[in-house]
Amino acid sequence: MVGRTLKIGIVGATGVVGREMLSILDERKFPVGELVPFASSRSAGKEVHFQGRKIPCRTLSTEGLKDLDLVFLDASDAVSEQWVPQAAGLGAWVVDNSATYRMDPQVPLIVPEVNASRLFEGVEASKKSSDFRARVIAGPNCSVAPLVVVLKPLLDRWGIERVVLSTYQSTSGGGVAAMEDHREQTQAFLNGKPVVTKHFPHPIAFNCIPQVGGFQDDNYTSEEHKTIREARKILGLPDLRITSTCIRVPAFICHAESVNIELKNPFEIEEIKQVLQSAEGVELMDDPEQKAYPMTINTMGRDPVTVGRIRKDESLKWGLNLWLCSDNLRKGAALNGVQIGEKLIQANAFG
Amino acid sequence: MVGRTLKIGIVGATGVVGREMLSILDERKFPVGELVPFASSRSAGKEVHFQGRKIPCRTLSTEGLKDLDLVFLDASDAVSEQWVPQAAGLGAWVVDNSATYRMDPQVPLIVPEVNASRLFEGVEASKKSSDFRARVIAGPNCSVAPLVVVLKPLLDRWGIERVVLSTYQSTSGGGVAAMEDHREQTQAFLNGKPVVTKHFPHPIAFNCIPQVGGFQDDNYTSEEHKTIREARKILGLPDLRITSTCIRVPAFICHAESVNIELKNPFEIEEIKQVLQSAEGVELMDDPEQKAYPMTINTMGRDPVTVGRIRKDESLKWGLNLWLCSDNLRKGAALNGVQIGEKLIQANAFG
Repeated sequence: MVGRTLKIGIVGATGVVGREMLSILDERKFPVGELVPFASSRSAGKEVHFQGRKIPCRTLSTEGLKDLDLVFLDASDAVSEQWVPQAAGLGAWVVDNSATYRMDPQVPLIVPEVNASRLFEGVEASKKSSDFRARVIAGPNCSVAPLVVVLKPLLDRWGIERVVLSTYQSTSGGGVAAMEDHREQTQAFLNGKPVVTKHFPHPIAFNCIPQVGGFQDDNYTSEEHKTIREARKILGLPDLRITSTCIRVPAFICHAESVNIELKNPFEIEEIKQVLQSAEGVELMDDPEQKAYPMTINTMGRDPVTVGRIRKDESLKWGLNLWLCSDNLRKGAALNGVQIGEKLIQANAFG
Repeated sequence: MVGRTLKIGIVGATGVVGREMLSILDERKFPVGELVPFASSRSAGKEVHFQGRKIPCRTLSTEGLKDLDLVFLDASDAVSEQWVPQAAGLGAWVVDNSATYRMDPQVPLIVPEVNASRLFEGVEASKKSSDFRARVIAGPNCSVAPLVVVLKPLLDRWGIERVVLSTYQSTSGGGVAAMEDHREQTQAFLNGKPVVTKHFPHPIAFNCIPQVGGFQDDNYTSEEHKTIREARKILGLPDLRITSTCIRVPAFICHAESVNIELKNPFEIEEIKQVLQSAEGVELMDDPEQKAYPMTINTMGRDPVTVGRIRKDESLKWGLNLWLCSDNLRKGAALNGVQIGEKLIQANAFG
């Protein structure tokens, strides 16, 4: 454990994930000595609230990144591309929530409940490395984190043959502006006014959009590729058979997922529930009689991935359907980042 | 073809499906001689609009069902249970959009694009039958109709090994009151007022609810069972391997579906597109570069099932992902019912 408090930078501190991270650092009593919030020049002069204090945001500069112990990046891929090498090059540990370094073979992609060991392995060697990437840990896409938290205990016990994923992703995945766009569209629709869209490829109010991210050559979206590739990397199964359809739905917070899983070995539903109930980071919420199952309204603002609607898929020998929900700003981003920070402390990265 | 106009009853004429049916009968120039709208006692005295006229609704009675040629039921299972035997017993042909008779082996479950032949086969024998069910045709669940319209041409060309379905179903599936509930909840949420729910098991505004219908012993919902059983019956494949997860989303109109399909034979994506493009009742909407794909906002109020996001599922040898959308009040209910009526005319049921 760290014997001292840390000097911490947060890039994107005024964004939805950055703000969530500030509150999570406080909630979890992360050993913050000094906090340096960074925001884009658009947000220059804005203050963030942390532990009852107001702290003015800085714009990113090499000077500003000096002497930091740990930098969290909760901004765009472009910001990470430019500033991760600088922050890590100056000696800080960097937890990057963008997609930029996730698939880099030199960078661990970490969901602590699943593969924290991968992080522990590298810390000592990293301290001596001249490659900045040795001090970079990536956090996954917001749909992937909850998925692998639920898949991992099933994988360990039964083995996984194949996964079919369909997502139900909220508008906060697009940030503050996307949520505001969603809210304005909804209000306009209800008032019979024209619905215009600023952030999404089409209006999202009362609509589902089967496009999250941009399209790739194979007509999958970047989000769909992320769910497939990042799940494989985190689970350590480069050949995992998994397919994905990612859909934006008109909810503000929480991503939900319909997951069809073919296991490699026989199981009973009660065993699945027991395994998930005792899994780290998972809350079993599966009582149909009480109409209890995961939803935005019982998962938002909370840490665990909620999982329910667990039932046999009779179209397979060893098939399983389940439904999960997760606060995309927390486990999908900010919480996972802070948890990585905690693991770095445990791994003596700052010793 | 019918040589005369028909005397038509519509049960549930003031509901969302009933009103849609009135406009579709008009649009399609259905040979309506006399129209008799029925509504519940709650709606007694209400008038419906048809071809520029106002027609007062009646409450259901044996007397009122006499001398009708064709009765459409767009009401609850309970209403159909009580009144279908009476209407058909009095000699009318009955198109029942409730679930009551769908799985009855004596009753054809018809989606005209898929299995109209099943209807043609029975018409002559039906005229002589003393079993009222001989004059009853069932329309399917609103998620099933679009699914089978898309699966059928794929089945005919390649054969289907297995289907994994996840739905995104709008609130109009619950009727007028459900839509109003959704609207009121949304307005309350935006105004920072308490969100109360009248129709749904939980608030639906900005939330996804993984429960459509009631739960069965195996923890599947009635809706999930319908999608599985009715698809099998309509496609004539009692052993089709299919699994289903049905989700209510905060859209007002249109059901969308993420469908993963394992085919029995090799295919090219271009072939799939060609087959779907020329399939009856299907509109191919699949141009990622133009951000063109099925959504509520381009499918609502229209007849075809829109289909897009067609791509190979590389986790299978012959796997396919696609996304479809359909106006649940039209192809999912009213349109399909009117199409059945048209087929009955073609089959000389009224000759």
